[in-house]
Amino acid sequence: MKKIVYILLLICSTAVAQIERVEPPFWWSGMHNPELQILLYGADITRYTPTLSDTTIIKEVFFTENPNYIFITINTKNLPATDLVFTFKDKLNQKPAFTHTYSLKQRDSNSAQRESFNSSDLVYLIMPDRFANGNPDNDSSNKVIEKANRNLPSGRHGGDIAGIIQHLDYLEELGVTALWSTPFCEDNDAKTSYHGYAQSDVYKIDPRYGTNEEYKQLAAEMKKRGMKLIMDYVTNHWGAQHPMYKDLPFYDWIHQFPGYSQSNYRMTTQFDPNASKIDAKNCMDGWFVSSMPDLNQSEPLVLNYLIQNAIWWIEYADLGGLRVDTYSYNDKEGIAKWTKGITDEYPNFNIVGEVWMHDQAQIAYWQKDSKIAAIQNYNSHLPSVMDFTLHDAIGSVFNEDNSTWNDGMIKVYENFVDDFLYPDINNILVFIENHDTARFNEIYKNDFDKYKMAITLIATIRGIPQLYYGTEIGMAGDKGKGDADIRRDFPGGWAGDTNNAFTKKGRTAEQQKWFAFTSKLFNWRKNKAVIHTGKTTHYLPENNVYVYFRHNTTDAVMVLLNNSTQPQTVTTSRFAENLKGYTKGKNILNNKTIPITNAISIPPKSAIVLELQ
Amino acid sequence: MKKIVYILLLICSTAVAQIERVEPPFWWSGMHNPELQILLYGADITRYTPTLSDTTIIKEVFFTENPNYIFITINTKNLPATDLVFTFKDKLNQKPAFTHTYSLKQRDSNSAQRESFNSSDLVYLIMPDRFANGNPDNDSSNKVIEKANRNLPSGRHGGDIAGIIQHLDYLEELGVTALWSTPFCEDNDAKTSYHGYAQSDVYKIDPRYGTNEEYKQLAAEMKKRGMKLIMDYVTNHWGAQHPMYKDLPFYDWIHQFPGYSQSNYRMTTQFDPNASKIDAKNCMDGWFVSSMPDLNQSEPLVLNYLIQNAIWWIEYADLGGLRVDTYSYNDKEGIAKWTKGITDEYPNFNIVGEVWMHDQAQIAYWQKDSKIAAIQNYNSHLPSVMDFTLHDAIGSVFNEDNSTWNDGMIKVYENFVDDFLYPDINNILVFIENHDTARFNEIYKNDFDKYKMAITLIATIRGIPQLYYGTEIGMAGDKGKGDADIRRDFPGGWAGDTNNAFTKKGRTAEQQKWFAFTSKLFNWRKNKAVIHTGKTTHYLPENNVYVYFRHNTTDAVMVLLNNSTQPQTVTTSRFAENLKGYTKGKNILNNKTIPITNAISIPPKSAIVLELQ
Repeated sequence: MKKIVYILLLICSTAVAQIERVEPPFWWSGMHNPELQILLYGADITRYTPTLSDTTIIKEVFFTENPNYIFITINTKNLPATDLVFTFKDKLNQKPAFTHTYSLKQRDSNSAQRESFNSSDLVYLIMPDRFANGNPDNDSSNKVIEKANRNLPSGRHGGDIAGIIQHLDYLEELGVTALWSTPFCEDNDAKTSYHGYAQSDVYKIDPRYGTNEEYKQLAAEMKKRGMKLIMDYVTNHWGAQHPMYKDLPFYDWIHQFPGYSQSNYRMTTQFDPNASKIDAKNCMDGWFVSSMPDLNQSEPLVLNYLIQNAIWWIEYADLGGLRVDTYSYNDKEGIAKWTKGITDEYPNFNIVGEVWMHDQAQIAYWQKDSKIAAIQNYNSHLPSVMDFTLHDAIGSVFNEDNSTWNDGMIKVYENFVDDFLYPDINNILVFIENHDTARFNEIYKNDFDKYKMAITLIATIRGIPQLYYGTEIGMAGDKGKGDADIRRDFPGGWAGDTNNAFTKKGRTAEQQKWFAFTSKLFNWRKNKAVIHTGKTTHYLPENNVYVYFRHNTTDAVMVLLNNSTQPQTVTTSRFAENLKGYTKGKNILNNKTIPITNAISIPPKSAIVLELQ
Repeated sequence: MKKIVYILLLICSTAVAQIERVEPPFWWSGMHNPELQILLYGADITRYTPTLSDTTIIKEVFFTENPNYIFITINTKNLPATDLVFTFKDKLNQKPAFTHTYSLKQRDSNSAQRESFNSSDLVYLIMPDRFANGNPDNDSSNKVIEKANRNLPSGRHGGDIAGIIQHLDYLEELGVTALWSTPFCEDNDAKTSYHGYAQSDVYKIDPRYGTNEEYKQLAAEMKKRGMKLIMDYVTNHWGAQHPMYKDLPFYDWIHQFPGYSQSNYRMTTQFDPNASKIDAKNCMDGWFVSSMPDLNQSEPLVLNYLIQNAIWWIEYADLGGLRVDTYSYNDKEGIAKWTKGITDEYPNFNIVGEVWMHDQAQIAYWQKDSKIAAIQNYNSHLPSVMDFTLHDAIGSVFNEDNSTWNDGMIKVYENFVDDFLYPDINNILVFIENHDTARFNEIYKNDFDKYKMAITLIATIRGIPQLYYGTEIGMAGDKGKGDADIRRDFPGGWAGDTNNAFTKKGRTAEQQKWFAFTSKLFNWRKNKAVIHTGKTTHYLPENNVYVYFRHNTTDAVMVLLNNSTQPQTVTTSRFAENLKGYTKGKNILNNKTIPITNAISIPPKSAIVLELQ
């Protein structure tokens, strides 16, 4: 196959060059950053000089060591939406050889000031291959290598965009207001391509998920329902099948040792003042896995390419946010510029980065305007991070029936004592699991009581709650058996599924119990500003009971989590500073109102959420 | 007894009042802070008005709700060393009733600019009751309740200042350059008074240790040897036998609930933005134990009393540093003012605070000029903190023969990755144990190999190394059996001890092996500026081998710690950034020089320290 392509290229290069790829394929007028870097790819394309009739528009034409690439920088300032006709002149005779028409489109109104996901949202994470197969016709495609095979745990199962669109009612009923899907762009790996993190074309939706237009349609359908679409963006690497890896624009487009060398994954080397340079380099520049060439964001051409690609998707598909994969493995300065490039363009836009560390100071380091990072004159510009330390606590605490100095609800309490280290504590994702972690329902063996406590916690504590598809119907899966087991198909997503958890009628009694609880809680949360942005006051757990309040100038909510196996009664005088002016609390789960003037009883392993009155 | 005192007081009050106590008992001219607050105590002393012939000196006379106290603030500015004769006039008839002569003494030259302990030192921590009984005549005293009884593990054993002075040769031979002793001031509790943290007179050395003059002599003897004396200061509380607790100057001199309420010990409440006020108050104001009334440092009279008391000891005994007990349990603002009050007086003076937390950010919060504390506009002004997280790692790592993602030497490595959070990384105490922790030699069952690794680590890493008495001869002790077991008598400190570990001749072969190693290492360290203040570069452990370098512009030291049970060979090309220009390394323990151009072999469970050449 490779040989045939090569021969074809040779033939082309003897005739007039073919432009095989233009990236971004089009752009918009009126962007904040008027400069645009257009990549042109074609066999021996550097034989030609790109020109425009208005000679003031082209700012720079950049050639690399690879004759198949041209990078043109144009200045779009004051240009209206228009078509720019590039004429390519043969360098040998200066005669026009061919043209390419490049569109600057009209932006949607208010695109720049678009709102984004925030702490008022419930983010729902899906893996699109595993959610719902809305269009069986696209399960396989002759444009990509791996074909559908639902019998392979790590194979392509056929889930797609159409499947998501068909089940937006379900998400809405659950209380979801924002959708984070693992990557939709083409991943042409021969195996386990379903995860999408080894992309082979970052301007094209994988045909097994649908088309670019369908992706745009998904965002539009969601917007109608007041929901936001969050794209999972991978700055750190591409897949080995990416054509630009196979024909690199230049040697340093990726990190080379030469070629592959594995990351040491020790992200602390990025800020550790004692770290050796070689360890820091091996972390940052090493590849995540051998099949994922590591992009060199310290090269301005690469950086620009990645910034523009992200902006292109935001503008094209009308996105409501980004999630960035392996944020802290990127070139440290480069990723900050990338993030700033996007937020300069969209000042209200939210981006959450995967900073998978186990220390609050280390996570907080990566949030925009971190005072900790400022010690080293660093600012990531990343608006949102993920509360992995809370996730760590959630992974064991509900089995800790007896409290000690270190065990029991004190673990959860202690996750919040360092909150002052985060510059923006409301903009932090709180979750009980995601697509890379053990399934909560596996750890806790589908214990509904423990589930209710955990969900109550993430639904009422500061931050942006995030669910992982299937959590809400009790889906389990053993990470020990491999990633595929925590990424099982959602029941009902495939024609012929005997269990259809998307509908009340189709759910088992057990599934319905879980769904009803989850849905009730998150629908209640939807309009509770006191939860979204209220202050938190928490109390040292006693007898494994954790009590906290969310409060603002008008409202107050009291949350009690009894993690012990005994019924507990808390004397409310202890909470006087938060209960002043209140005498009753309405339990939002059963709508019963109880007095709070003396004591509150709480059953074993349970949660109570009271709206104070 | 109480009744008799009361009757005596009644008798006195009908005659001329007796001044029972004046604190500070004297002071110095030429202090940075010219204001001095003198406390006068005597039955019904407020019947009298204190006066001085020079009426400009007395700035304020403050009476409390207790008629037995007068606080006089005088301005010593421009006063030479002199005796001030206070005349007390009877308020009834304005006639002079009695006088008190108060001395302002001459300061030692360079007192204000005194140097203090720092990272060039080896700090040795002793409990004086358990070190050496130099003067059996003072083992018991009729001025204090508890008498000597060496058969009681928690009793008074008779160790004293004389015993320390007699063994300064031993300390010097070991390489000690600074001595931190647990408190010497009088602790008049009826039981377990040996620890000294429940003080009953903070202006007087406990008679079972000696006299104030002997304490001063200890400092002087040490100074002759270039050694510094560090006083263990307790700002947080006094003992229940303190006369000022029994007759409080005013109700709020201590924290009252009323009377005793136990601290919740949760120090995170001091910075946690979510913490309830009541939890923060219970931590800070709650008593450490019921026998230790908690001082209220937010009261200016208390605060001033404590500042002056510390300064008095520094000036009187010519101290070389302070260690502050339970630093982060004090009134948060008060303790910062206390610390600043002392360092304003002695700008080069070092104070190390016990901030016993398990998170680098939380410890770093308490160090002077912390950027983390600055987020909350707080500055403790405390120059030095203790590396409790390193201590945590040391407590388990040497039993971790096999390295995993989280286990083995990576635990030690990870202690240093957050070093940038500390404003002054050289001013942090590093230790393998202290008087409150499990004994290293108990945890590791007197495994000499593990001991050598641990000691090599604290002798060569950044910070101020601290030994706990007896560590260096393999003393063990089980904290599980109670504190007394980790505070056993030093062998040879008592007449009739069959084992005398103070001398080479007296030490067992095993003790000598430990002592020789420790002494060799710390004597080598004494003049190594590269260790005291050099930069650190460390490398991710591989095969449970941790390699780091200490380096400055002229010298470099390479340390290798093999924590695996196999011999290991490290290829030195990996360390190129630190080995540039060096070809050989001199092993400082056996004086053998080895080539470092290819590889270095290191036996199982061992440490190598190489001076690079």
